Amino acid sequence: MPHSHRPHILVTNDDGIGSPGLLALKDALSQVGRVAVLAPTRSWSASGHVKTMHKPLRVDEVRLADDTPALATNGAPSDAVVLAFLGLVEHPIDLVVSGINPGANLGHDVTYSGTVTAAMEGAIAGVPAIAVSVDSRTPSDFGPAAHWAAEVTRMVWRFGLPRETLLNVNVPALSLERIAGVLITRMGMRIYRDELVRRIDPRGRPYYWIGGSAPTGVEEEGTDIWAVAHGYVSVTPLQLDLTAHHLLSTLREWPLPVESAFRRTDDQGSY
Amino acid sequence: MPHSHRPHILVTNDDGIGSPGLLALKDALSQVGRVAVLAPTRSWSASGHVKTMHKPLRVDEVRLADDTPALATNGAPSDAVVLAFLGLVEHPIDLVVSGINPGANLGHDVTYSGTVTAAMEGAIAGVPAIAVSVDSRTPSDFGPAAHWAAEVTRMVWRFGLPRETLLNVNVPALSLERIAGVLITRMGMRIYRDELVRRIDPRGRPYYWIGGSAPTGVEEEGTDIWAVAHGYVSVTPLQLDLTAHHLLSTLREWPLPVESAFRRTDDQGSY
Repeated sequence: MPHSHRPHILVTNDDGIGSPGLLALKDALSQVGRVAVLAPTRSWSASGHVKTMHKPLRVDEVRLADDTPALATNGAPSDAVVLAFLGLVEHPIDLVVSGINPGANLGHDVTYSGTVTAAMEGAIAGVPAIAVSVDSRTPSDFGPAAHWAAEVTRMVWRFGLPRETLLNVNVPALSLERIAGVLITRMGMRIYRDELVRRIDPRGRPYYWIGGSAPTGVEEEGTDIWAVAHGYVSVTPLQLDLTAHHLLSTLREWPLPVESAFRRTDDQGSY
Repeated sequence: MPHSHRPHILVTNDDGIGSPGLLALKDALSQVGRVAVLAPTRSWSASGHVKTMHKPLRVDEVRLADDTPALATNGAPSDAVVLAFLGLVEHPIDLVVSGINPGANLGHDVTYSGTVTAAMEGAIAGVPAIAVSVDSRTPSDFGPAAHWAAEVTRMVWRFGLPRETLLNVNVPALSLERIAGVLITRMGMRIYRDELVRRIDPRGRPYYWIGGSAPTGVEEEGTDIWAVAHGYVSVTPLQLDLTAHHLLSTLREWPLPVESAFRRTDDQGSY
C-alpha cells in the first residue's frame, strides 16, 4: 500500500533526549518524513515495558543539540510513546521509531529493552514501529545505523506491517562499506553471564551488584545474534502475541482437576 | 517425567513481600514442595522486565506475617529471581512461581507485568515458571487462586514445560465452587482506555497523569480474556521467542538495498 504523503514519524529512545543516537536517527528520518521527538529526560537502561500510573509525568519543551524543538519527559520510553499518542504530539502519528540504542538488543535482550518496548507501545497504539540499535556501547559513529534505520523505515512505510507486530533492527558497529548486507532473522538465544558481586558498606552491611561479563549468544544461523556477529544488519519481526501456540494441545491433555459441576454441563469441549 | 522428589520452589511477586497474595501462594505451594521466598520490598506495578545493573541491591532477611523466614530485596521482581539463581537461595531451584497478583494479567498486560516478567526470568534461568494473578485489585480471598496455583504447579512438576516457555495463570475472583473450571487459552487483545489528565502544579507548571478507565479486552473465545470473563481459570502458555515467524518470508521479499559487494559473493541465499 504505497502512500501519497510523507509519514509523520515519532522518534523516541531509551537513553535520553541528549543521546547522539537520537540526534542521528532524527536526522536520517527527516529524509523519509516529518519527525517529532518525544523522549525520556534520562537513561532507562534495562527498564523493560513500563507504564507509569503511580506518579505524575512532566513533559518539557527542549531543544536538541542542533536546535531542533523536542519534548522530554521524566517517564520511561514506553511512557513517552503513550504520552505522544494521548495528544502531546500532533496527530496523526504514522510510524514510531525508537533508538538508536548504543548496544545491541539481541535474543532475550528484547524483553528487557526500553528501546524495543517503546516500539511495542507503538504497535499497541496500532501503528508500525521499529526499534534500532547499534552493536557497540560506545559507537564512534551512529551514521551507518541511522542510514539503515532510514532504509528500513522507508520499506515499512511502503509495505506496512501487520497489526501487533514490530521490527527489531540491529546494526553492526562497522562503516557502511564494511556492512555485509541485511538479513531477515529470528530471535536468537542469549547466554547471560551474570555474577553476584557481594560488597560490604561502610556500616558493615552487605549489598550486591548483578555483575559479570556482557551476555554472549548462541550463534545459530538465521538468528539476529548470528547476523550481527557476521557483519549483517539484522531485521527481526517481533509480535506482541507471546502465546506458545505449539503447547496449547499438549497442555489440554493435562489431567487438571475439574471441580465444578457448571463446567461439566457448560463446556462444549471447544478448547 | 515424574520426579521422585518434591520440588524446591522459588516464590516471588510484583507487589511486595508484605502482600497477602504472596503469603497465600507460599501456603498453598508448601503442600507441593519446599518453598523459598525472595520478593521485592515494595510494589513494582507495571514495571516490566527489569534487570538492575546501575545500582547496588540490598537483600534482607525478613519474616512473613506467619513468621516464615524470607528474603526481601529493593530490586525489581525479575531482579529477585536473578539474585535467587545467582546464589542467594539454596540450589537447586526446581520451579519459579510468581504471584498472586491482585489484578489480572491478560492480553498485552503480560508485557508490562512484573508478575509475568519474574516468571520469564525463571524461564531464562532454565526452569519451569508460572505467573499467577487473580482478577480483582482488592480480592476478599486469595484462597481460590492459591488453590489453582498449586494444582497447576503440580502439573508442571509432573509433566514439565519445554525450555523457553512459561505459564500465565489468571483466576477469576470467585469462590472455588463458583469457578467454572480451567481452560488452556491464548493471549487475547487488551483495549487500553488511557486518557491524558493534565493538571497545574502550585507553581503554575503543567504535569500529566496517564489516567482513564481500566483496560477492557476483546472477548474472543479461546483467549485468556474470554476465559476469565466467563468464570474459568485461564492457563496460557507463553514463550520467550517473540519472533513473528509468519512474517519472515514476507520481509525477505522487500527490496532492501544491498550496498555491499561482500554480500553479493558471500550470501548463499539461505535466508
